[in-house]
Amino acid sequence: MKRDFIYLDHAAATPLDERVAKAMAPYYTDRFFNPSSPYAPSIEVRRDYEAAKASLAHSIGARPDELVMTAGATESINLAFGGISGHVVTAEIEHHAVLRASEKHDHTLVKSDEHGLVSAEAVKLAIRPDTQLVSIALANNELGTVQPLREIAEVVRNERRARLDRGNRTLIYLHCDASQGVGQLDVNVARLGVDMLTLNAAKIYGPKQVGLLWAASDVRLTPQIVGGGQERNLRSGTENVAGVIGFAKALELATEHRKYESDRLAQLRDQLEKTLVEAFPQAVLSGHPRHRLAGHLHISFPGVDAERIVFALENRDVLVATGSACAANQGTRSHVLTAIGLAPEVADGSLRLTLGHLNDEVSIAQAGEIIIEEIKREMERVKR
Amino acid sequence: MKRDFIYLDHAAATPLDERVAKAMAPYYTDRFFNPSSPYAPSIEVRRDYEAAKASLAHSIGARPDELVMTAGATESINLAFGGISGHVVTAEIEHHAVLRASEKHDHTLVKSDEHGLVSAEAVKLAIRPDTQLVSIALANNELGTVQPLREIAEVVRNERRARLDRGNRTLIYLHCDASQGVGQLDVNVARLGVDMLTLNAAKIYGPKQVGLLWAASDVRLTPQIVGGGQERNLRSGTENVAGVIGFAKALELATEHRKYESDRLAQLRDQLEKTLVEAFPQAVLSGHPRHRLAGHLHISFPGVDAERIVFALENRDVLVATGSACAANQGTRSHVLTAIGLAPEVADGSLRLTLGHLNDEVSIAQAGEIIIEEIKREMERVKR
Repeated sequence: MKRDFIYLDHAAATPLDERVAKAMAPYYTDRFFNPSSPYAPSIEVRRDYEAAKASLAHSIGARPDELVMTAGATESINLAFGGISGHVVTAEIEHHAVLRASEKHDHTLVKSDEHGLVSAEAVKLAIRPDTQLVSIALANNELGTVQPLREIAEVVRNERRARLDRGNRTLIYLHCDASQGVGQLDVNVARLGVDMLTLNAAKIYGPKQVGLLWAASDVRLTPQIVGGGQERNLRSGTENVAGVIGFAKALELATEHRKYESDRLAQLRDQLEKTLVEAFPQAVLSGHPRHRLAGHLHISFPGVDAERIVFALENRDVLVATGSACAANQGTRSHVLTAIGLAPEVADGSLRLTLGHLNDEVSIAQAGEIIIEEIKREMERVKR
Repeated sequence: MKRDFIYLDHAAATPLDERVAKAMAPYYTDRFFNPSSPYAPSIEVRRDYEAAKASLAHSIGARPDELVMTAGATESINLAFGGISGHVVTAEIEHHAVLRASEKHDHTLVKSDEHGLVSAEAVKLAIRPDTQLVSIALANNELGTVQPLREIAEVVRNERRARLDRGNRTLIYLHCDASQGVGQLDVNVARLGVDMLTLNAAKIYGPKQVGLLWAASDVRLTPQIVGGGQERNLRSGTENVAGVIGFAKALELATEHRKYESDRLAQLRDQLEKTLVEAFPQAVLSGHPRHRLAGHLHISFPGVDAERIVFALENRDVLVATGSACAANQGTRSHVLTAIGLAPEVADGSLRLTLGHLNDEVSIAQAGEIIIEEIKREMERVKR
C-alpha cells in the first residue's frame, strides 16, 4: 500500500500514534497477564490498567470508578441508552448509533438549523414529563458543528428541578457522544454539565474498538454484557489491557496538545477553505461558520458528483470522504445533509475534508490545487 | 517485570504470538483506514478484513457470512442468548458469562458428574417443550473436561425432529462456547453439530477482547449493539481490523499446530501429574481422566490453603491459578468445584495448572520440583 497520499479523512479513522503503540506493546508480550489473576505480575497489570483508567478519568475531570470501558463509541452509546425505559430526545443529525439506539424507545428527533446546530430551546420544547434521556453529540461527525452542550445541560438541569418541584420522580439524564470533539475541544464532564459521556480511542490516534462510557455516580446503568463481573459488573469480559493503556496515552496526548493542534488545524482548514471558495464561488459551505471543529471542512459543489470526485482524487493520492464512513458505504444520501435542508444536487456534490496529524501546510496547499483541478475537470465533463 | 518465570496459567491469558503481532502491526499504521471508507486503500483494508473472516470461518468449517465479530467470548455468549425468549438449558459448571446470561431467561442448570462431564442424557432430561437454547462449553475452563458435544447435538436434533412431528414450532438451538478448546481440539461446527459457536482470540495467543460468534444461517440473532450496521447489522461499531487480522492468524496457527501441540502438552501435563501424584498420594485429581484438555491439570491437596501456595510459588517465579481468573479475584470458592461435589477442604487446596506455548520439558520438571517443595513446606507449617 502506498504511503505518499494526502489524507483528509481523519474523522473516519486515524493512524495509531507511535507513542501510543509504544505504550501498548508491553501488554501484548511481557505484561500479557489476565488482570484478574492472583499473582504479582497480574496485580501489576491490574494496577497499570487502573492507572490508565485514572488517567482517562483525569483527562475529562471525572472519577476513575465512574468509567466503564467498552469496545468503542457505539457500544458506549448502546450502554447509555440501555438503562432507561422512558422517552428519549435526540437530534435528526445524530450518528446512526444514537438514532438506532433511540428507535428502541419512544423518542423525539429535534431538528437542527441549516448549520447543523441543535438549539437548547429546541431540546427544551421536545422534553416531555416522561423524558428520561437527552442525547446530543458534542460535535457532528459530518458537518463538524459543535453543539451548545452547556446550554442544553442547563435545560436538562432546569427540567430536573421543575420535576422535583412538581413531585415528578422521573429521572432525566443528558448523554453526550464526544467522540468527534475530544482532541479539539474542552471535554470536561463538569464544565459540559452532562450526566453521561461517550469517548472513542480510534478518533484520537488510539486503537480501534476501544471506548468508554462515563456515567455520573447517580446514573443507574443496566449491563448489556453480563459474565465475569468486570467493570463493576456493568460490562463483563477480560479487560482489553493494551487497548485501554493505549487509549489513556492517546487521550493524554490529545489533551496536552489540544490548544496547539486545534489552532494549527483551524489555520490549515481556513487556508483550504479560502482556496476552494476562491476557485469555486458557487461552492456551498456547511457546518456552523463559528461553532465548528477546527479540522472540519464540509463543502459542496452543486451539480458535481462527489463520488466521482472521491475516485478522481484517489487517483491523485488525495483521500477524502463524501460523508460519514458508515453512510458513504451504503450508497445512500447522508441523513445529516437532508436534515439541514441541503438540496439533493448540492448534497450529492459534498466533500467532507477532515484534517489532522497527517497534514501540514505543504500537503494542504497541494491538496487544494489537486481538488481544484479535479473538480474543474469534472465540471468540464458534465458540460460536454 | 521479570521474564524468567514458569507460567502455568495459559487458560487465564496467553501472550501474543509474535507472528500474530507481525500480522496486526500494519493495520495500526500504514493500513489504519476505516474499512467503510470509499477510497481504494480502505477497500483494500475491507478486503483484508473479509479475508481474515474467511480464514476464521474456514478454520471452523463455516461460511464467512455466518460470523459476527465481537469484543470477546463474553460478548459472543450474550449475543447468542439475546435472540431467544424461551427456556434455556445449560450446566452448573458453565462459565459465569453463560450462567449470568441464562439468568435473564427461565433456565435449568444440568448437573455434571464428579469429573465435570455433562451427559447428553442429562441435557435430554432438562429439555422442555419451550426450551429454545442449550448452551454447553466444549471444555470446562477449570477442570479441562471435554464435553460430549456431538451426543448433545444429537439430542437437540432429535428434539427438533420430534417437535416438527408434533407440530410444535418452537425453535431450539445448541450454542457451544469453544474458547477453551480451540487449539487443542477439533473445532468444526458441522462435526460438532452445533448451531452457534463462540471463540476467543485471547486464549490462543491472539489479542484480548477479540471474539466471534458463529451462527448457522437459519439462526435468528437479535443485535445487542446497534448503530452503523456493521457485521450484517448484528453488531455495529467500526471494525477491529487489527484485532480480527490477529485473531485469524492466531486461529490459523492454532489449527496448523494443533495435533503436535496437544500431544506435546499432554506429555508435559502427564509428566507433571505423575511427579505430583507420586509426591502426594493423597492429592485429588479433578477433571475427566480421559476426556480432558491436553494442557489441563486440576489437582487438589486436601488441607492445604491453595491461595498461600499461589503466593509461595509466585515467590519462586512459578505462576499458577487456584481456579478461573474471574472467580479467583472474588475470593469465593469456585462454583465448579462445588458443583462436582468436591469437599470444601479439598476444593480450597486446588491448583489449576494449564500448560501452553511458554512451557517445555525443562521448565515443567523445574515447576514440579518447586511445587512439591512449597506444598511440603506448607504442610509442615500447618502441622506445627
